[in-house]
Amino acid sequence: MTAHPDFEWLGLVDAGPNRYSLEVTPRLTRLDAKFYGGTGAAVVAAVMEAATRRSALWETVQFVSSADIGERLDCVVDVLASGRRTSQVQVTGRAGDRTVFVAIGSAGERRDGVLDAQFGAMPDVGGPDDAEPFERRMPFRRLEGHRGWLDLIDMRVLDLPGGRMAMWARLRDRPLTRAALGFLTDVVPMSVVRAAGRAGAGTSLDNTVRFGPDPAGEWVLVDPDPHLAAGGYVHGAARVWTPAGTLLAVASQTAATVLFD
Amino acid sequence: MTAHPDFEWLGLVDAGPNRYSLEVTPRLTRLDAKFYGGTGAAVVAAVMEAATRRSALWETVQFVSSADIGERLDCVVDVLASGRRTSQVQVTGRAGDRTVFVAIGSAGERRDGVLDAQFGAMPDVGGPDDAEPFERRMPFRRLEGHRGWLDLIDMRVLDLPGGRMAMWARLRDRPLTRAALGFLTDVVPMSVVRAAGRAGAGTSLDNTVRFGPDPAGEWVLVDPDPHLAAGGYVHGAARVWTPAGTLLAVASQTAATVLFD
Repeated sequence: MTAHPDFEWLGLVDAGPNRYSLEVTPRLTRLDAKFYGGTGAAVVAAVMEAATRRSALWETVQFVSSADIGERLDCVVDVLASGRRTSQVQVTGRAGDRTVFVAIGSAGERRDGVLDAQFGAMPDVGGPDDAEPFERRMPFRRLEGHRGWLDLIDMRVLDLPGGRMAMWARLRDRPLTRAALGFLTDVVPMSVVRAAGRAGAGTSLDNTVRFGPDPAGEWVLVDPDPHLAAGGYVHGAARVWTPAGTLLAVASQTAATVLFD
Repeated sequence: MTAHPDFEWLGLVDAGPNRYSLEVTPRLTRLDAKFYGGTGAAVVAAVMEAATRRSALWETVQFVSSADIGERLDCVVDVLASGRRTSQVQVTGRAGDRTVFVAIGSAGERRDGVLDAQFGAMPDVGGPDDAEPFERRMPFRRLEGHRGWLDLIDMRVLDLPGGRMAMWARLRDRPLTRAALGFLTDVVPMSVVRAAGRAGAGTSLDNTVRFGPDPAGEWVLVDPDPHLAAGGYVHGAARVWTPAGTLLAVASQTAATVLFD
């Protein structure tokens, strides 16, 4: 049996039927060394695919508590229904008896030729070499000497008209997978605050990703689609494009607003 | 204690701490008399608010099995975390020992004056009186004499350029609430198939709704934002506007593609 392609970089190991385990290593954390939301999205996509042997269709991961470097996360996949084409699953991630995240989602057998279409326009932007490294631009509180997920991701920021932004992103030296798309797209709260003319980000309540055609290649353009800010919370989405303009996924999130300015 | 404003029209009753129950009545079903996805979205928003006494921020409801008219649904709200401002919850709906839906979401204490913004443009369209009743337009298989959710919703369809559509919608004789927004926005799969130039809809895998400012008034414009169709599945979203152009919510869904033509 071949291991799932994302298990290596996420540090996932089998721990019994529909059970998986990983250690929270520095590269799976945020710049402040707390558990990274994109890690939750990537882990859920990977274990959902491993348990069902089907391809991730969509997922919503809700963050309930944080986790620190060195803690071990136990992930349990409950297959709630398994039809001819689609499996509906629930995934719970715990550190000891503390729930870190709960997730729901589906995986399916993709069929060719039913209906293929994509909507929206990829922004007309320069390539990754025309963009500025994320680490030079972002106003996050950083733990001295800690790089977090930047050790796994090469991310570069482009300014677009009207206060908008976009990011070229890739995993360093690893192929693009659906789990990788979950890892690369945890940027929605920041883009909503920025589009509103402020500096800041948000404490994510969830990461939702809807997955389209099979990912291929290396770089993707993360193209934020901010929705709104109200009541102390922000909501938004991001389309994820290949350099050739294929829409691979759409991510969305709600977060508690955090302002830095 | 005042009952939650949505309990009456959804037929929800208290059934113990964080437990609620409702009967699947004809108006809570689809046009083919199966459980309506919008009912799931409305019930989850209502019970999440009732259990936490906070305002719904976002929810994702996954449909695991159907339910028939006359069945009783037992809904259990698990509060996974309750912070100063935000509660993270999980909701499970069962008919007997069969799981009908599982949901996750958050409710919060909204704070004024933190950051208020909205993005995207409301389409420039005529009013509800310029639009055509949904029941005259939609190609759904209908059970003879059964009106399903049309007994609760007044929905009218507008054609937009490029195969796009939009719908004016309101609850009949009831105020607009966040639960009502969930009930009114279960139209994404149909709008994606239509934008791709075909007639059809989809079997929803989930309904996700992100809620903004307090709803007020009666009519809303449901403004679909189709994402993509691939592998036999469709993904998309819809912005929900007041007639004056306030963005109240954004709904999104993934569905298995169903073509009628």
